[in-house]
Amino acid sequence: MNRAVTGASVHDLSHQVTGREPGRTTYPLYDEAVLGLPGFWNPVCFADEVRNDRPIGVQVRGHKLALMRDEEGTVRALVDRCPHRGVPLSIGTCEFPGNLTCRYHGWTWDLKNGALKAALTDGADSPICKQGSAQARTYRVQERANMVWAYVDDDEAPSLGDQLPEEFAARDLLVLGRWQDVEADWRHGVENGFDEGHAKMLHRTSLWKTFRYVPAWSKIKVTTSEDSRTLTRTVTDKGFETDYPGLGVWPHKRHWWQKPEGKPGGKRKPPVVSVNLPGIVRVHWPDHPLGEFDFWEIWVAAEPHRYRIFQLLTQRARGLIRWRTRIAYDLAIRWIYHHSFHDEDLLMVRAMETPPEVLYRPDRSISAWRRMVEDYLTKRGLGDHRPPYNSDEPQSLRKT
Amino acid sequence: MNRAVTGASVHDLSHQVTGREPGRTTYPLYDEAVLGLPGFWNPVCFADEVRNDRPIGVQVRGHKLALMRDEEGTVRALVDRCPHRGVPLSIGTCEFPGNLTCRYHGWTWDLKNGALKAALTDGADSPICKQGSAQARTYRVQERANMVWAYVDDDEAPSLGDQLPEEFAARDLLVLGRWQDVEADWRHGVENGFDEGHAKMLHRTSLWKTFRYVPAWSKIKVTTSEDSRTLTRTVTDKGFETDYPGLGVWPHKRHWWQKPEGKPGGKRKPPVVSVNLPGIVRVHWPDHPLGEFDFWEIWVAAEPHRYRIFQLLTQRARGLIRWRTRIAYDLAIRWIYHHSFHDEDLLMVRAMETPPEVLYRPDRSISAWRRMVEDYLTKRGLGDHRPPYNSDEPQSLRKT
Amino acid sequence: MNRAVTGASVHDLSHQVTGREPGRTTYPLYDEAVLGLPGFWNPVCFADEVRNDRPIGVQVRGHKLALMRDEEGTVRALVDRCPHRGVPLSIGTCEFPGNLTCRYHGWTWDLKNGALKAALTDGADSPICKQGSAQARTYRVQERANMVWAYVDDDEAPSLGDQLPEEFAARDLLVLGRWQDVEADWRHGVENGFDEGHAKMLHRTSLWKTFRYVPAWSKIKVTTSEDSRTLTRTVTDKGFETDYPGLGVWPHKRHWWQKPEGKPGGKRKPPVVSVNLPGIVRVHWPDHPLGEFDFWEIWVAAEPHRYRIFQLLTQRARGLIRWRTRIAYDLAIRWIYHHSFHDEDLLMVRAMETPPEVLYRPDRSISAWRRMVEDYLTKRGLGDHRPPYNSDEPQSLRKT
Repeated sequence: MNRAVTGASVHDLSHQVTGREPGRTTYPLYDEAVLGLPGFWNPVCFADEVRNDRPIGVQVRGHKLALMRDEEGTVRALVDRCPHRGVPLSIGTCEFPGNLTCRYHGWTWDLKNGALKAALTDGADSPICKQGSAQARTYRVQERANMVWAYVDDDEAPSLGDQLPEEFAARDLLVLGRWQDVEADWRHGVENGFDEGHAKMLHRTSLWKTFRYVPAWSKIKVTTSEDSRTLTRTVTDKGFETDYPGLGVWPHKRHWWQKPEGKPGGKRKPPVVSVNLPGIVRVHWPDHPLGEFDFWEIWVAAEPHRYRIFQLLTQRARGLIRWRTRIAYDLAIRWIYHHSFHDEDLLMVRAMETPPEVLYRPDRSISAWRRMVEDYLTKRGLGDHRPPYNSDEPQSLRKT
Repeated sequence: MNRAVTGASVHDLSHQVTGREPGRTTYPLYDEAVLGLPGFWNPVCFADEVRNDRPIGVQVRGHKLALMRDEEGTVRALVDRCPHRGVPLSIGTCEFPGNLTCRYHGWTWDLKNGALKAALTDGADSPICKQGSAQARTYRVQERANMVWAYVDDDEAPSLGDQLPEEFAARDLLVLGRWQDVEADWRHGVENGFDEGHAKMLHRTSLWKTFRYVPAWSKIKVTTSEDSRTLTRTVTDKGFETDYPGLGVWPHKRHWWQKPEGKPGGKRKPPVVSVNLPGIVRVHWPDHPLGEFDFWEIWVAAEPHRYRIFQLLTQRARGLIRWRTRIAYDLAIRWIYHHSFHDEDLLMVRAMETPPEVLYRPDRSISAWRRMVEDYLTKRGLGDHRPPYNSDEPQSLRKT
Repeated sequence: MNRAVTGASVHDLSHQVTGREPGRTTYPLYDEAVLGLPGFWNPVCFADEVRNDRPIGVQVRGHKLALMRDEEGTVRALVDRCPHRGVPLSIGTCEFPGNLTCRYHGWTWDLKNGALKAALTDGADSPICKQGSAQARTYRVQERANMVWAYVDDDEAPSLGDQLPEEFAARDLLVLGRWQDVEADWRHGVENGFDEGHAKMLHRTSLWKTFRYVPAWSKIKVTTSEDSRTLTRTVTDKGFETDYPGLGVWPHKRHWWQKPEGKPGGKRKPPVVSVNLPGIVRVHWPDHPLGEFDFWEIWVAAEPHRYRIFQLLTQRARGLIRWRTRIAYDLAIRWIYHHSFHDEDLLMVRAMETPPEVLYRPDRSISAWRRMVEDYLTKRGLGDHRPPYNSDEPQSLRKT
């Protein structure tokens, strides 16, 4: 057995350690991006979760935010830590519309600019307000497509409209979905999401595939958009029962009720899968019985080795069509796709320990994604990309 | 927004790190005092928890003690680790009155001096006893006011009577209360306990305040006792409905059944709040419907980031008065003050992450307390104050 | 009190740290052996736990193994980590007999040699298979005495038959027992297992001893086998009621239904206790009412501070004798010896914090065991004994 080649055993790791840091791909900036990519708006929660009478706390790219609506109903964000004694503002209260009051001593912060309007328990003449010596950091937040998006970098924020697909601004956009916090690296999430190969093995027996006969294999090509922010994965060939040398035919059986998935000559156009910066997988169904719609998965790093994933179904629709999709989502899609199907993915994302790794042909989707991120970070310069997170936790891709 | 000023966001912390160690106040010895202050007796449990037929284990200032009563009923303490094979003596047994026998191999220790009287499983002629090569460390412990107090420093112990208030020695002292182990820093506990400001915001809606209309703010002065071991906090001014510039009047409403708290001209004398070394807050009620009594809160560091808090009600009383207070405590005070009211404090003490911090006028109580500790430690010299605790855990005030 | 002598208090530890690393015995190679001893086969599970239609995962000496039977029924082991994307192979499936397929992307590994036979989701022409660039490490495993034994070192493995006692190969060997994973150091497990002294104190009141009157003390001698791989502990003297100077007679009472254990002049031959490399305690009952049989305890380090213990009863027996022992085991021995009795040991093994330690006369059994290990490691050279485990966890004997 050629142990130098495998890179696979626990034993080998100890040897590799001497030569090279474990947990590294060939993309150094990608490896550094523990807390996601700078220069983008990230969704933090759904819009209807933010109220005007009490705050909620979210975490994005190492920053903790307390969200509340001001008196006009606009969502605002302050740093989720009272500068006074360091307790979370997200357990505070709303004593005056448009202001967030700390639960501990009543320091009252203007949601719009983070100014200290009053330290209630020190009276109207409290010197701390006049000195201007206390200030809560504000964050830029916007509502779009039923979600709240935050920009946490220090530089000028790009236009949210420019970043998001056009239809996210449409008034007739139906947005259905959920989010979930996962203890895993956001990059493993995206890589699994844009990974062509695993569906045909991991999800073969999932509830979602009950009426589908999944191919054994496929060949793909990956194309890059002009702005280098989107990769599209296209299947160029696929096979069902296949005779593997030295093993035999696989998969073994097709149930009579299963319809081969995406067999050429099908009447409907196949879905198109793409991945977008900073970490969004889109599955566009141009020609589905429910009409044209999109599935989205958005990975947002919260802190090292923890992310929030948004799973969405969006459709531009009105009237009955809109209701039909909503009912289909609530009764079926949510449970069998966004829950049970996704749980299979999570099993892998949580168990994954790479690098080291040995990639194969379908992994060109993963390599292309890493290269796109690397290119983006190289152009941008690392500047404020360095994670603000103050932590002793491992910061590499590799779970330790 | 002037980010250099705020010191508040997660982002800022990373910058501060470069310039200055996080988690530091301006009092270096106070910052070091992870395990409490040397030179004092500390309560470790209630007297009736210690039996003469089996030991119990307690932890104080990084030391683990096994407590048991000897044949005269005197409480004794040995180090809670058998020198033989390192198992806790507090899971041992009493095979001979006045001696504690290790559960593992029967090494039998004299409670009075920690001498090895026998290694039972090695027979009466065991060389290990004759050599005098094994010895369990003893600790000085005393009973007072229904509690067991331990002195764990190596120097000569001060008189417990001198350290404690006179009435703790009184024969008619009623002592009611409880203790609780809390995963937080003992200094955050004391600081919250002597903090004037938070009660008017945090406890505003607590069960304890149902029939009280709490002031919005107060002004205090803090006076130091002659021996620099006690600080007393006195309210010099207070206000109820107050008009805050740019915000409006607060608090918003007073229920008809609420009586303004401590309004000047009240018939009863107000309580007096003081904090004492090494970490005791006393609220003296000179003129309460239940009679004159004291509330005490005593914080005892067990190990880094864990303390035991004693919450007591003491009263010098006999006969019916004594029974009335006991019933009031068991039926009401215990639950609404020592439990639900205190739980609000714990929410803050556990969430607090300071320094960095920005203090305001009422925090002079906290600053005075820190200064008093700093002065004490400066005078004493750090000598054996260095924590004996052998640990890789963070030793700073700041939770990480 | 001579604190320099005790080595016992928490306080003392901090002083010792300066002079000498804590957690060290006088045997440096023994102290290093966090993950057990090289050069031996170790049991990893029972043979009937390994199936031919799905794998199971085990851990031994820092190595993770996926076990499955091939098409001939032979147990095979691959490293429990797919070289592709680092997920455990032990959650994989059997798509083709004799091959283990990764659950994630269908990489299919030959159980016999770890070759990549197919990457199912990449089709029959997948380049990754032809390149030979992917290889799963295989491990040597064998079945013997109803257990699976693994050899994880890189050198040539000794004969399993040579390592094991002769009767383990016997066709009429009855093997009963269980295994349990314990969060403790394997050396504390073995030391407790071969420790003569503790039984007479710790197990005095156990269910196992209900009908036994346990001696107070014993004197032992320890003899070494010619090949320096086995130590035998023999009792040379013992005593029951004993008068300890300054304390009195102990043990205090003998119940009328208790029979003194091993009193000279008993009709039956006493059991013989030995410890064998790499960490096996054998209690041989030559003359038991159930016939001649052996108790075995085998400690196998899984990772630092976690071991798997095998507790066995073996007997060469056929027919009715065999059934009688099996019934006695299932109804009684399993529960009162392998569970409740062993739980008392685990209480100590988990609580033990040594070194520092102060040994006494009966601990010559422990010292002899340590010396035997030290001699073995010295002769062998440390070579590949250095643990392969890639971990930041504490690697010393001492729990921290």
